[in-house]
Amino acid sequence: MGIVVQNVERASSDIIDRLAAAGVATVHEAQDRRGMLGSHMRPIYAGAQIAGSAVTISAPPGDNWMLHVAIEQLQEGDILVLAPTSPCDNGYFGDLLATSAMARGCRGLVIDAGVRDVRDLTAMGFPVWSKAVSAQGTVKETLGSVNVPVVCAGAAVEAGDIIVADDDGVCVVKRAEAEEVLAAVEKRLAAEEAKRTRLAAGDLGLDIYDMRPKLEKKGLRYV
Amino acid sequence: MGIVVQNVERASSDIIDRLAAAGVATVHEAQDRRGMLGSHMRPIYAGAQIAGSAVTISAPPGDNWMLHVAIEQLQEGDILVLAPTSPCDNGYFGDLLATSAMARGCRGLVIDAGVRDVRDLTAMGFPVWSKAVSAQGTVKETLGSVNVPVVCAGAAVEAGDIIVADDDGVCVVKRAEAEEVLAAVEKRLAAEEAKRTRLAAGDLGLDIYDMRPKLEKKGLRYV
Amino acid sequence: MGIVVQNVERASSDIIDRLAAAGVATVHEAQDRRGMLGSHMRPIYAGAQIAGSAVTISAPPGDNWMLHVAIEQLQEGDILVLAPTSPCDNGYFGDLLATSAMARGCRGLVIDAGVRDVRDLTAMGFPVWSKAVSAQGTVKETLGSVNVPVVCAGAAVEAGDIIVADDDGVCVVKRAEAEEVLAAVEKRLAAEEAKRTRLAAGDLGLDIYDMRPKLEKKGLRYV
Amino acid sequence: MGIVVQNVERASSDIIDRLAAAGVATVHEAQDRRGMLGSHMRPIYAGAQIAGSAVTISAPPGDNWMLHVAIEQLQEGDILVLAPTSPCDNGYFGDLLATSAMARGCRGLVIDAGVRDVRDLTAMGFPVWSKAVSAQGTVKETLGSVNVPVVCAGAAVEAGDIIVADDDGVCVVKRAEAEEVLAAVEKRLAAEEAKRTRLAAGDLGLDIYDMRPKLEKKGLRYV
Amino acid sequence: MGIVVQNVERASSDIIDRLAAAGVATVHEAQDRRGMLGSHMRPIYAGAQIAGSAVTISAPPGDNWMLHVAIEQLQEGDILVLAPTSPCDNGYFGDLLATSAMARGCRGLVIDAGVRDVRDLTAMGFPVWSKAVSAQGTVKETLGSVNVPVVCAGAAVEAGDIIVADDDGVCVVKRAEAEEVLAAVEKRLAAEEAKRTRLAAGDLGLDIYDMRPKLEKKGLRYV
Amino acid sequence: MGIVVQNVERASSDIIDRLAAAGVATVHEAQDRRGMLGSHMRPIYAGAQIAGSAVTISAPPGDNWMLHVAIEQLQEGDILVLAPTSPCDNGYFGDLLATSAMARGCRGLVIDAGVRDVRDLTAMGFPVWSKAVSAQGTVKETLGSVNVPVVCAGAAVEAGDIIVADDDGVCVVKRAEAEEVLAAVEKRLAAEEAKRTRLAAGDLGLDIYDMRPKLEKKGLRYV
Repeated sequence: MGIVVQNVERASSDIIDRLAAAGVATVHEAQDRRGMLGSHMRPIYAGAQIAGSAVTISAPPGDNWMLHVAIEQLQEGDILVLAPTSPCDNGYFGDLLATSAMARGCRGLVIDAGVRDVRDLTAMGFPVWSKAVSAQGTVKETLGSVNVPVVCAGAAVEAGDIIVADDDGVCVVKRAEAEEVLAAVEKRLAAEEAKRTRLAAGDLGLDIYDMRPKLEKKGLRYV
Repeated sequence: MGIVVQNVERASSDIIDRLAAAGVATVHEAQDRRGMLGSHMRPIYAGAQIAGSAVTISAPPGDNWMLHVAIEQLQEGDILVLAPTSPCDNGYFGDLLATSAMARGCRGLVIDAGVRDVRDLTAMGFPVWSKAVSAQGTVKETLGSVNVPVVCAGAAVEAGDIIVADDDGVCVVKRAEAEEVLAAVEKRLAAEEAKRTRLAAGDLGLDIYDMRPKLEKKGLRYV
Repeated sequence: MGIVVQNVERASSDIIDRLAAAGVATVHEAQDRRGMLGSHMRPIYAGAQIAGSAVTISAPPGDNWMLHVAIEQLQEGDILVLAPTSPCDNGYFGDLLATSAMARGCRGLVIDAGVRDVRDLTAMGFPVWSKAVSAQGTVKETLGSVNVPVVCAGAAVEAGDIIVADDDGVCVVKRAEAEEVLAAVEKRLAAEEAKRTRLAAGDLGLDIYDMRPKLEKKGLRYV
Repeated sequence: MGIVVQNVERASSDIIDRLAAAGVATVHEAQDRRGMLGSHMRPIYAGAQIAGSAVTISAPPGDNWMLHVAIEQLQEGDILVLAPTSPCDNGYFGDLLATSAMARGCRGLVIDAGVRDVRDLTAMGFPVWSKAVSAQGTVKETLGSVNVPVVCAGAAVEAGDIIVADDDGVCVVKRAEAEEVLAAVEKRLAAEEAKRTRLAAGDLGLDIYDMRPKLEKKGLRYV
Repeated sequence: MGIVVQNVERASSDIIDRLAAAGVATVHEAQDRRGMLGSHMRPIYAGAQIAGSAVTISAPPGDNWMLHVAIEQLQEGDILVLAPTSPCDNGYFGDLLATSAMARGCRGLVIDAGVRDVRDLTAMGFPVWSKAVSAQGTVKETLGSVNVPVVCAGAAVEAGDIIVADDDGVCVVKRAEAEEVLAAVEKRLAAEEAKRTRLAAGDLGLDIYDMRPKLEKKGLRYV
Repeated sequence: MGIVVQNVERASSDIIDRLAAAGVATVHEAQDRRGMLGSHMRPIYAGAQIAGSAVTISAPPGDNWMLHVAIEQLQEGDILVLAPTSPCDNGYFGDLLATSAMARGCRGLVIDAGVRDVRDLTAMGFPVWSKAVSAQGTVKETLGSVNVPVVCAGAAVEAGDIIVADDDGVCVVKRAEAEEVLAAVEKRLAAEEAKRTRLAAGDLGLDIYDMRPKLEKKGLRYV
């Protein structure tokens, strides 16, 4: 505790932006169904779809001091990722901190705790994925750390990992795997389009994916 | 496990559509306050109000194979009802499956698990009531069953039962009772209108429903 | 149980309306971070921001009889606050009761249980903060009490206390402290504006609040 | 609501007692992994292992009236199964009701709600599987039903079905399938003993069940 | 925040001890079914049954500083009651604090958060009712208050109120009502004994409480 | 997915055994209050206190195949640590697997899912810390991985890390930090003993830790 890591490598903005465009479900599938944060992480408003480099925060329950420390570490295109050291639903973050984070190019916040001023944040277009919405205030008394490895909502996140978030939740991509994941993403997107056309025309997945023999072999019985 | 029931009786589309028009709260009250699925079943977008015949799916946790099997069993006006065999929040269903289901006339999905691609589903106008929104992917390895009796979100549902769903949640009406329930629904709707007018004019429920003597008898004291 | 307190003192409507304008987060901070109801209390629609005098209801699980009794006690500008005597998610309240409450000037409902007809309530502009949305119906068999002290969603509320509610949740202000809290609120609002301007310009909270020396003293290390 | 079914067929006591001896996990596996109630159903004390015929109760939240009605329907060797019509954790049942139930030969209670007097019940040797332990009292105002089909903790139970319960939870066996399930149970028990001996000697499941080829085919890599 | 109330009136030890002997369920029923803390408050070991005067603590999440302050306020026969200002499961209390509290005559702890060293506490015979067992440590940075009114696990508790706790949970009795509640308790205990004898002999509650006419009037049907 | 790491470094058994003797709370405090798994991880029986090297398992929901693979990787003194890839409460592990694991020197299981046969496991003296007890069975269809980094109950665990578990829960110590943590543990144990003696004699923590000046400076007021 009490450490701020300053030099964080980040993926290229091109890779990040193409992951954002693909969206969470595709990225998650493309990396072997890994990386999802827990499904309790919900957006404060519908429609945001972003990706960015994680600036991680490990913070004590009910203490948002480290957010101020983390904001200084932000670079254009980053996303704040806050994991409390034990379960907490306090409103660590509101419109003033969002104003500050936006001024430094931050794209959003992922927090396994609470957020407040959600009406203002929505009006500002600052997206947040959180466990709770709560106005419950916090103190500034105890150190945490910035840019250390954290576990946020059940997923391990290191500073510089890529966070992808949309209405389906939040997914983390390891920085070192980003290029490879992107390649798989784009292959997947290409394949999906053809399937969608066939399905829309009434073809069945049973036939498109040739599932009938395997189902029969497993013993599926039609009665 | 591993059974697909193919011949399912359904209620008439006229009865189903009139139940849809009445909405969940009225249908639930009209059938003696029975049939509600648990309140954790929430719509992915506000405003949908549907009814349809249940095509039921019993599926293992984290395995969406049976959805493909179930889609073949869909008829115009049906609603898919998926109950995992143990608690699970994975995203069993997304835009490709919705494309396929819509191509076969499906009106929506009720799933005591997760759903993904909710932004696409919203744009497509395919309503879903679910326990969770999650992009977490699933496998296709283990058989389940289609059109067998299931317990979904605490309610027993058989294939061909009528599902009514709106912003208040999801209610199931037994197929054999549908006509009788509809009669009670329409009686109830007629009675409500007169009450609404009196209440809007400032009359009290205490007087409209003649509650004062009963309250007094029970011992209510005004101090 | 079985008591209705009729004479309830209320704060002035001017104080109440200025607390409403300030919103939940500011009021909560201004009264020493006290008074928040649990974060599970969510609005049925976004955008409502109200304050009013509490008319409290202690009701048995699954029994909404006392709502009718409470509505008679409403005065212009009041807010209904219902606490079940044990955890319950039934839909105690719907469009008919809302019609009745609105006819008496009620501004909204705070209920640590369920609500139904949420589409109608949204259309009527009657805001509700609740633990659940559920159509599950209730009975009218057992007495509760009206305008007695209750614990609602973890907060102690007495009749006549001021309820402030918006998208961030629900906060209660003791009636006797309302004036003092309002003074603190307005001081706080004035101070925030200057900070917001500086933060938007890129100044850091670390500097604005002079946090660096304290962080250093606690042992924060930059690596 | 408001129905008491009096003539309930029960399985033979011999079948029931042999299912009890096998225990929950074995019975559940033997019937194709079906029938488990939710894992929140916990015993009030360790070590009880019972089976019996279900006398089912559908009861309103916070109202234990129907327990008195159900006790009259008990026969030697029965188990009470109570499902509230909506989630509730009240203490529906305590030492007086247990005294009454035991006097009629009841073997235990399965309740998706609360129980109280657990110290007395433990001393009396009356086992209960419940969602909660709570002294919160209930009323006797609203009818429910006895021996109708219920959904208890996510499982469909009909009067006369066999309930098996031990430290691993609660499982229901359909009465009509009891004989067939028992046959599968006994086959399974015989097979387990040989496996246990080999495993205790250090043989691996990988070899005993010949898993290596299937794992390799699926692509498992040792690194 | 930051207040320690030193002069707290307590009920007589005779009343307190007789409430302890009656146990939670009886006390709760005798005071009109009020006063239960939430059913998530569980004892760390079975068999303790105590009552005592509440020394209340309002503490921030993850900060146990005020426990040290509260221990100085303890008198022989008191019970510590800790309510965090927002939900928290940290282990605020362990064997060292228990040693200190016992040295001052404290009978136990009720905490809507976590406790640790439960094996030691069990060996010492120091009972705790808590929301969680967790070794997660806390800090000593932020003030709370001692002997102010708190809401603990959903129940309002003031310093000097009587806490009764056993295997069924925790109940609070207002100090001013203690004598009256005790009278009702003792009346109730006397009545129960006769009922227990009749029930054990096989008489039905339906007959002992003369329920049949009321059930019939409500419409109960035997089929 | 589908990887088994075979060469795992482990800490010395001397260090591991001394961490076991210290217990979870002390180890957790000694490493700067890090490493606790979530408080929902509860032992199936009271009194076990162990430490060992983690053999990690990442397994799909409802699929226990990888446990067989992991058991082959066990060495004397290891502890199995299973993290499902999404939330699941199935009973992945029972008496047969425990027999096999014990035959290979395994000290226990930590599983963020369910366990069954708990009566047998208790009799065998094989301790388990789990999220749930459930007999719900699993399949063997989908690969997971063994000895890869996992997140188990909110804590990051790598193969070879040291798991410490007792009645207070489960804590993980990084292998590379084990020696340093042990040194801090033993320093802490020595210090505690003196404090315990003083506290038992009635000295206050306020005085022993010299808290009064700091409390006064923060503004604590005695009234």
